[in-house]
Amino acid sequence: MLFSSGRPPLPRMPLLPYFIRNPSHLLVLRGRWVNGAICSCRIPSAGGYEGNIFLVNPKANTIAGRKTYPTVCDIPEPVDLAVVTIPAAGVPDLIPQLKEKSIANMLLITSGFGETGEEGKKLETKLVQAARKAGILILGPNTMGICNPHINFYCTGFSAKPQAGSTTMISQSGNMGVQLLAFAEQQSIGIRGICGSGNEAMMCIEDYLDGLEVDSITRTVMLYVESVKNGRRFFESARRVGKKKPIVLLKGGQSQAGNRAAASHTGALTSDIRVFDAVCHQAGIVKVDQPMALLDLGAAFSSLPLPKGNRAAIMTLGGGWGVVTADLCAQFGLDVPELSKKIIKDIDKILPPYWSRSNPIDLVGERDPAIPRTVLELLLKWDGCDAVINLGIVGRQMAAKNLGESVLKADSTYSPEFIKQIHDGLKKFEKDYIAQIIHLMEQYNKPVYGVSMLPDEKHQTVYPIKKHTFKGVFFPTPERAVRAFAKMIQYQKFLSREEELLKVPKVN
Amino acid sequence: MLFSSGRPPLPRMPLLPYFIRNPSHLLVLRGRWVNGAICSCRIPSAGGYEGNIFLVNPKANTIAGRKTYPTVCDIPEPVDLAVVTIPAAGVPDLIPQLKEKSIANMLLITSGFGETGEEGKKLETKLVQAARKAGILILGPNTMGICNPHINFYCTGFSAKPQAGSTTMISQSGNMGVQLLAFAEQQSIGIRGICGSGNEAMMCIEDYLDGLEVDSITRTVMLYVESVKNGRRFFESARRVGKKKPIVLLKGGQSQAGNRAAASHTGALTSDIRVFDAVCHQAGIVKVDQPMALLDLGAAFSSLPLPKGNRAAIMTLGGGWGVVTADLCAQFGLDVPELSKKIIKDIDKILPPYWSRSNPIDLVGERDPAIPRTVLELLLKWDGCDAVINLGIVGRQMAAKNLGESVLKADSTYSPEFIKQIHDGLKKFEKDYIAQIIHLMEQYNKPVYGVSMLPDEKHQTVYPIKKHTFKGVFFPTPERAVRAFAKMIQYQKFLSREEELLKVPKVN
Repeated sequence: MLFSSGRPPLPRMPLLPYFIRNPSHLLVLRGRWVNGAICSCRIPSAGGYEGNIFLVNPKANTIAGRKTYPTVCDIPEPVDLAVVTIPAAGVPDLIPQLKEKSIANMLLITSGFGETGEEGKKLETKLVQAARKAGILILGPNTMGICNPHINFYCTGFSAKPQAGSTTMISQSGNMGVQLLAFAEQQSIGIRGICGSGNEAMMCIEDYLDGLEVDSITRTVMLYVESVKNGRRFFESARRVGKKKPIVLLKGGQSQAGNRAAASHTGALTSDIRVFDAVCHQAGIVKVDQPMALLDLGAAFSSLPLPKGNRAAIMTLGGGWGVVTADLCAQFGLDVPELSKKIIKDIDKILPPYWSRSNPIDLVGERDPAIPRTVLELLLKWDGCDAVINLGIVGRQMAAKNLGESVLKADSTYSPEFIKQIHDGLKKFEKDYIAQIIHLMEQYNKPVYGVSMLPDEKHQTVYPIKKHTFKGVFFPTPERAVRAFAKMIQYQKFLSREEELLKVPKVN
Repeated sequence: MLFSSGRPPLPRMPLLPYFIRNPSHLLVLRGRWVNGAICSCRIPSAGGYEGNIFLVNPKANTIAGRKTYPTVCDIPEPVDLAVVTIPAAGVPDLIPQLKEKSIANMLLITSGFGETGEEGKKLETKLVQAARKAGILILGPNTMGICNPHINFYCTGFSAKPQAGSTTMISQSGNMGVQLLAFAEQQSIGIRGICGSGNEAMMCIEDYLDGLEVDSITRTVMLYVESVKNGRRFFESARRVGKKKPIVLLKGGQSQAGNRAAASHTGALTSDIRVFDAVCHQAGIVKVDQPMALLDLGAAFSSLPLPKGNRAAIMTLGGGWGVVTADLCAQFGLDVPELSKKIIKDIDKILPPYWSRSNPIDLVGERDPAIPRTVLELLLKWDGCDAVINLGIVGRQMAAKNLGESVLKADSTYSPEFIKQIHDGLKKFEKDYIAQIIHLMEQYNKPVYGVSMLPDEKHQTVYPIKKHTFKGVFFPTPERAVRAFAKMIQYQKFLSREEELLKVPKVN
């Protein structure tokens, strides 16, 4: 059997999972162990959250310089969400208090439940039964927490603050979620929300999918999944959601060793990966094999128009790079078509006579700053390609910085002011070029997959400009750009298939 | 046919390619076009080179604040190497001057030769004939230049200064070489030398291989190759070198589109990739598919002991990460064996009762700093595995920094000094842990493939400590660690095969 049997449905459908709702009154319940420095990040105000926060602790009068209340019922105002980090054994006793205070949602970070063995499982079952009866929804337990940058709400054990955006991630692994959170921050990938689903005692991956279907801010869904509780429901939800927004999935436990590890990690049942893959294909889920690919696709799907086909035009600032990228395209099932005579004639006008006259187009180091933009537009306009892979042009700032330093050391005739001017000029050029890319993508509705010459100091991948849905995307290596293109095609094919299905006349 | 026919052999075998010799007197020939800022980096002294440099230019009296000589023959001292950037048409006229001055080596950066078409090819042939007659060796033309960090000699059009080490790279593409150069600097990968082979008018990839065979500093050879001129010689050289040090190769032009691009880039003849792959396999060449993999393997081969087999023990700071890594191992043909009873019993003593009791070993977030080292040693000692993949433990500094900032914002009871203390403690812990890894690798002669929790601000991959050959290696993602392990096994198998061949008694 592919999946374990489904659990009883939730008492009410949590149409919007809690981590993307906007709580304005928080309750934070903290046990003895959290008085160390390590846990202060769980007070969300460090991230700029502006709602009220009430701390409850029976022993301390203040924690982190804030007033605490001895019990939940002592809090003078209404509360939306209880964030719970007290020891596992004490959690069931909280339920009556939360009910009395009409708190319907609990983020249960505490571990020591189902993941620790039989005793823990019993405790978890008891807790869920009590919560269900009291009408309380539990997210967790044993979760890394949740974050929603749109309200500056960063409630995780790990301190990273990605910027607000449209990519939402649900992870059945805390440390995977935390790492992706940190990478998202580093690469400027905009996040709608990130949530570790923990043991999924009540809210499970299928519930999250249902919620994300109706969340208008979410444009891309990313899942790290070790197992799903109800295979049929997962499949149906995914296919429904997938018609509206892409779902990108990394499956943990695809091999025997991985399965064994998943069983010990989240208690996932062994599943037949071929069946799972078939289900994904049917439901239009885009599967990836590496954690980083999740983020790359989050960036690409949320920032670029969807390509209509698999024909790549490659524009490069260097020969070898173009060769390797063409090889990678072949490896990922993309075509690199020959250029049309018209395109060759048009480019003849602006490149020197020895240019490649074929795809990839090597800009042969020409220094006229207008050339890349002109060639890019010719390619986007051309009906012979579905996307442009743009190698270099952006990503020369670090090189320019190094060069400037070398020049100043070697050549006393240059002034630091002059070097700075050159550097500022390059910075402006790159910014303008990215804006041009965004405008051209809007005009021609074709994606441009960028690869930086070199990563900048911030290792940024996504370059937004205000008031535009599309964004510049520059990956640090060609393989990541090519993979993003190939995976977006896969999703596009799913959409076409679904459209075709709608066209088939029904015969009664 | 696989390769184009061989050219006549060089007038004398350049046993050590010029870029890893130590010139003490340089001549830099510069044309009009190089007076802009962009070219000052070609004066190697910005990198700290301590030999003499003489500039020659017929028009200027000084360049970059240095005295220039009107002709080569006006230089008052002997010269080892001429670095030439004058326009192509003028280069043949240089030959008699260089001969008169007894300068036997020319680094010819100038482009505009064979790569631009028939005219250029004629010019290149003429130049090579004259140089051959005059006994002058040409590296290039149309090369990105050379760098040898061991003598602070960075003579490329791009300003990056990787640190001295034992990985040598020859690239048939300038921009590929330049990017790898910059990545090597960023990730602290030690470089013996990097050289763009340009058009290979005289020195070709086979010559470089012969030279690297006898260079005692080179421990790993990395090649970016689009085509080789003499297939048999390449194969024989590679196999001979490969027995002494690993050769890692990225082949450009593996697909139809890539081949077309390579033909336009370096004039490479179409080759049958299956034949090329078979040759590589026979010669023990480790092939990779992505530019970044070249560097990863340069780092791994130069820093870690060679694994004896393909059995991986995985030690992780988080469940999901272990699952994904086990899957990746399966994907790359590595085994993740079950733990022995003895190992389980030993680890039982130090981890809480709910630990995974299986491979991957999840350290379940225990805070005792001695635990990772103890478990690592148990695994390295164990004859059931050939290498350890170490996920996390190192790479928490950025997280700690963020956390510290959050704590200070949220909690007025903590002082910046206290936070700094915590951070410094972690820094020291990571440094000590890496030193322990290096000692344990020496003791047990097994590699440890590390994966950082998060990259540090410098995106370092290699962590050396003084006076030790082995180094700590921490990749930013598990797939890069797993791939490095798998590729090292491939090389190890070649060595075993060659050893077996030696054992077969010869019958006459």
